[in-house]
Amino acid sequence: MSQRLSLGLDFGTESVRALLLDLADGRERAVAAEPFPHGVMDDVLARSGAKLPPHFALQNPRDYIEAAGRATRRALQSAGVDPSAVIGIGIDFTACTPLPLDRRGEPLCFAPEFEREPHAYVKLWKHHGAISEAEHMNRVARERGESFLARYGGTLSSEWLLPKLLEILRAAPHVAAATARFVEASDWLVERWTGQRIRGACAAGYKGLVDARGAHPNGAYLEAVDPRLPAELARLVPADPLVPAGVVAGLLGERGAAELGLLRGTPVSAPIIDAHAAVPGCGVGRAGTLVAILGTSACHMLLGEREVSVAGIQGVVRDGILPGFFGYEAGQAGFGDLFGWFVERLLGRDGSAFAELEQRAAALLPGRHGLLALDWWNGNRSILIDPELSGLIVGLDLSTTREQIYAALIEAAAFGTRRILENFEEHGLRCDEVRACGGIAVRSPFVVQTLADITARTWTVIDAPETCARGAALCGAVAAGRERGGFATMAAALQSLPEPPLRRVTPRAEARASYDALYALWREIHDHFGVRAKHLMHALRQLR
Amino acid sequence: MSQRLSLGLDFGTESVRALLLDLADGRERAVAAEPFPHGVMDDVLARSGAKLPPHFALQNPRDYIEAAGRATRRALQSAGVDPSAVIGIGIDFTACTPLPLDRRGEPLCFAPEFEREPHAYVKLWKHHGAISEAEHMNRVARERGESFLARYGGTLSSEWLLPKLLEILRAAPHVAAATARFVEASDWLVERWTGQRIRGACAAGYKGLVDARGAHPNGAYLEAVDPRLPAELARLVPADPLVPAGVVAGLLGERGAAELGLLRGTPVSAPIIDAHAAVPGCGVGRAGTLVAILGTSACHMLLGEREVSVAGIQGVVRDGILPGFFGYEAGQAGFGDLFGWFVERLLGRDGSAFAELEQRAAALLPGRHGLLALDWWNGNRSILIDPELSGLIVGLDLSTTREQIYAALIEAAAFGTRRILENFEEHGLRCDEVRACGGIAVRSPFVVQTLADITARTWTVIDAPETCARGAALCGAVAAGRERGGFATMAAALQSLPEPPLRRVTPRAEARASYDALYALWREIHDHFGVRAKHLMHALRQLR
Repeated sequence: MSQRLSLGLDFGTESVRALLLDLADGRERAVAAEPFPHGVMDDVLARSGAKLPPHFALQNPRDYIEAAGRATRRALQSAGVDPSAVIGIGIDFTACTPLPLDRRGEPLCFAPEFEREPHAYVKLWKHHGAISEAEHMNRVARERGESFLARYGGTLSSEWLLPKLLEILRAAPHVAAATARFVEASDWLVERWTGQRIRGACAAGYKGLVDARGAHPNGAYLEAVDPRLPAELARLVPADPLVPAGVVAGLLGERGAAELGLLRGTPVSAPIIDAHAAVPGCGVGRAGTLVAILGTSACHMLLGEREVSVAGIQGVVRDGILPGFFGYEAGQAGFGDLFGWFVERLLGRDGSAFAELEQRAAALLPGRHGLLALDWWNGNRSILIDPELSGLIVGLDLSTTREQIYAALIEAAAFGTRRILENFEEHGLRCDEVRACGGIAVRSPFVVQTLADITARTWTVIDAPETCARGAALCGAVAAGRERGGFATMAAALQSLPEPPLRRVTPRAEARASYDALYALWREIHDHFGVRAKHLMHALRQLR
Repeated sequence: MSQRLSLGLDFGTESVRALLLDLADGRERAVAAEPFPHGVMDDVLARSGAKLPPHFALQNPRDYIEAAGRATRRALQSAGVDPSAVIGIGIDFTACTPLPLDRRGEPLCFAPEFEREPHAYVKLWKHHGAISEAEHMNRVARERGESFLARYGGTLSSEWLLPKLLEILRAAPHVAAATARFVEASDWLVERWTGQRIRGACAAGYKGLVDARGAHPNGAYLEAVDPRLPAELARLVPADPLVPAGVVAGLLGERGAAELGLLRGTPVSAPIIDAHAAVPGCGVGRAGTLVAILGTSACHMLLGEREVSVAGIQGVVRDGILPGFFGYEAGQAGFGDLFGWFVERLLGRDGSAFAELEQRAAALLPGRHGLLALDWWNGNRSILIDPELSGLIVGLDLSTTREQIYAALIEAAAFGTRRILENFEEHGLRCDEVRACGGIAVRSPFVVQTLADITARTWTVIDAPETCARGAALCGAVAAGRERGGFATMAAALQSLPEPPLRRVTPRAEARASYDALYALWREIHDHFGVRAKHLMHALRQLR
């Protein structure tokens, strides 16, 4: 039998990775990364050199095409295979990362008359130019008691599609007027490469406020937000089919084949949000297993068989992660960022200091240094959904050491994770296994040990760096269909392919008692500053 | 007219300073410091090399005699004067720093059979071997509703005389049996040098639980603490006359003259606690001026014309600081220690980094970094009197810098000072001027500026390093009497002598609004962790 490889294209914040997964044995045959030539434009617009407003984070969509083409060709070369070996393509992408298209479906920023206009470019997920728009949308939604808010844990983020659209309507009406559609960059790539106009169900559901029936929030609400919004939303975000990842969105056309260096007719899966691709990437295709991505921030995804309303999460979307499941997502806005802040920004040490501090912290008696921290250095995403909260350390005395603080920061992150797990369970969602991936999971054994100790569960680490790209490749394989890819469903693929490299971390019995005592105190401080006395941290923010 | 100098002997923790004050012009003619040969014995007992129990801090009383003799001779030499120029001697001393004496009035540790016995040595003020004794005494006093507790802000310290006596009764009954008296080291020096048995009113009042009538707590209370205590206290702490500083305790005898290299018959003032000597040392001899000593910790002293009960202070003692006034004392257990912890222990920088951090912190907009801290790194002395409290920082985010945290620590110390000032005023004590001395006051202009800004008062810094020794010398001058010293009272001395070098620091109008807003938030967090939810920090301590 000839070779059967699936290509996963993992579009991150700074670069794209192309991964070739061998569907015979589940091995990763090649990975090639290519940076985006313009990176993230958060200071000046490259084309004009003009200073950007604060909180902007833009990208040039041409970067995606060029970098993906180079990465795919290098991966093929490195694997020593012919393009004909690639039987399917999966795409994962940051979200919400939308761009305005013109009437021909081309990015507006490609047009000479708009190439100096910031609002014509891709607004990256972490573009924060729509904070006031999001606050306004939240206020109106709460005043009207809008039920759709519950799907998003009670609060909309400024990073999502509608605040970003409203930002353009308000700040750049001439851009809005010239825009024919406002779409996720991932959907635009699928359209460009296959000719099919679809919406990836994942991004549309988690970031586009589309409900399980495919509908946007009701017109009365939209009109209350802005009288232009109902019509403009209908015009700029048309009701193209919602397609879950793992389902074919289209076949590679002439332009796509040329740009990627692959064969025409190759099936392309509907895109998936990068974090969500980690779920299949970690070998998870069933309800009850939580997948945690531990990086600068942390993302927690859980598949459920039914829809329940969970307070304090980021969202629940039918078919949002994998077809046939309700996908629940929660998160911690700061995770590895906390450790980085402490080591690099506060102590002024370089990256080599992490291992030394981690070793010293690991040598302490668990939870007996007398410190507690709240991990809100970047606000709280779950379960309080409050970006105005801030970090706290208590228990300091003249004998407090660096490694004790480092341990306290790690424990704070782990207490935050425990609260998220408990919150899922309190709302009736089973969570009997945890799998972790991402840079921190792979590189920091003590962090994972602390997570296992504090959550009192076994954590299984995926000991591979490219779980998202692997997940995308699996989506490509399933989208290719049973005949070409070998699997009828994601569950079948995950069952028949060997697991990625796993490492099990079990909780230490001796840590249990002190961490349980510490967690009870942490809950009190969490509830005080996060709920009852949240005005304190809000007021501190406003003093800045 | 021949020269008229007064000698101030300032016995600190590690050394003694001899200062010669010229009573003609108020100038300091010479200062000589001599370290105590054995320093603080907190690890092993020098004589035996035996390991000491935890929390012990002992001294060898011979060190006081030797170091004072050397320092006095060097000061005379440096000033180029004859011993006959010295018309009076004042002594300030750490407290409570007691030692057991034998029947002949000699230190018990000088006897060969006790020289290897830790409990026979001087127990330095920071000896913390009597924590459980102090807790027991506090518990019994509260259960019985003892009114004397109010004079000490509601809580007795383990550093004081009765807990230290009880420690010996319990831990070393053979030492107690061989002891004839248990006295402050300063009183023992006066007795050794003049032949007069007196008790310095300052230490007896603030640390010896002696009330304005000279009485100890009632016998029923003492008996409830320990059945042996009433008799042992009467035997070991006899009712020698209570003499305020600035009043002559005796005249230098043959032994004193020999040991100090001065003339027989020189008047010696009753001793004063080192911190309290700073009050006259700063030129303060009237009610309503607060004197703050800013060092590793901070001490706040205020003279009042009447006795009021003030919650949360260290003590109020009639004639305790200067004759004719009620002396009120409050304190912050950590002050410069906080900044030292941050710079040296956490950042791992040396002393040169203080100036750089202070400069950067001073360049920030006052109170607009979004951080708040509680200055309880060493517990809280005033106004909560709770050594089990700990430090806290809130408002941290990924952009927080070192200088912002440094500024927040300085502000925390200043908020603590403001609370102490307000507390005095809330209890009806006038406080219309503040004078500051000590290492931090002299060396750190930004700390004093922040104190002025946050307390919204002018702070006057005594720009001289030896305010305590100066105060002791003034006590010596007044004790010498009008004829020899030139002044009938301390007030007269302070009025006629030029002020020490002063530097006035006025509050900045632009800092006022943000600091008032920040202080309101600080109060909420202070009251939460210090009162309503103090179990949180207590529990964190107990986890250690």
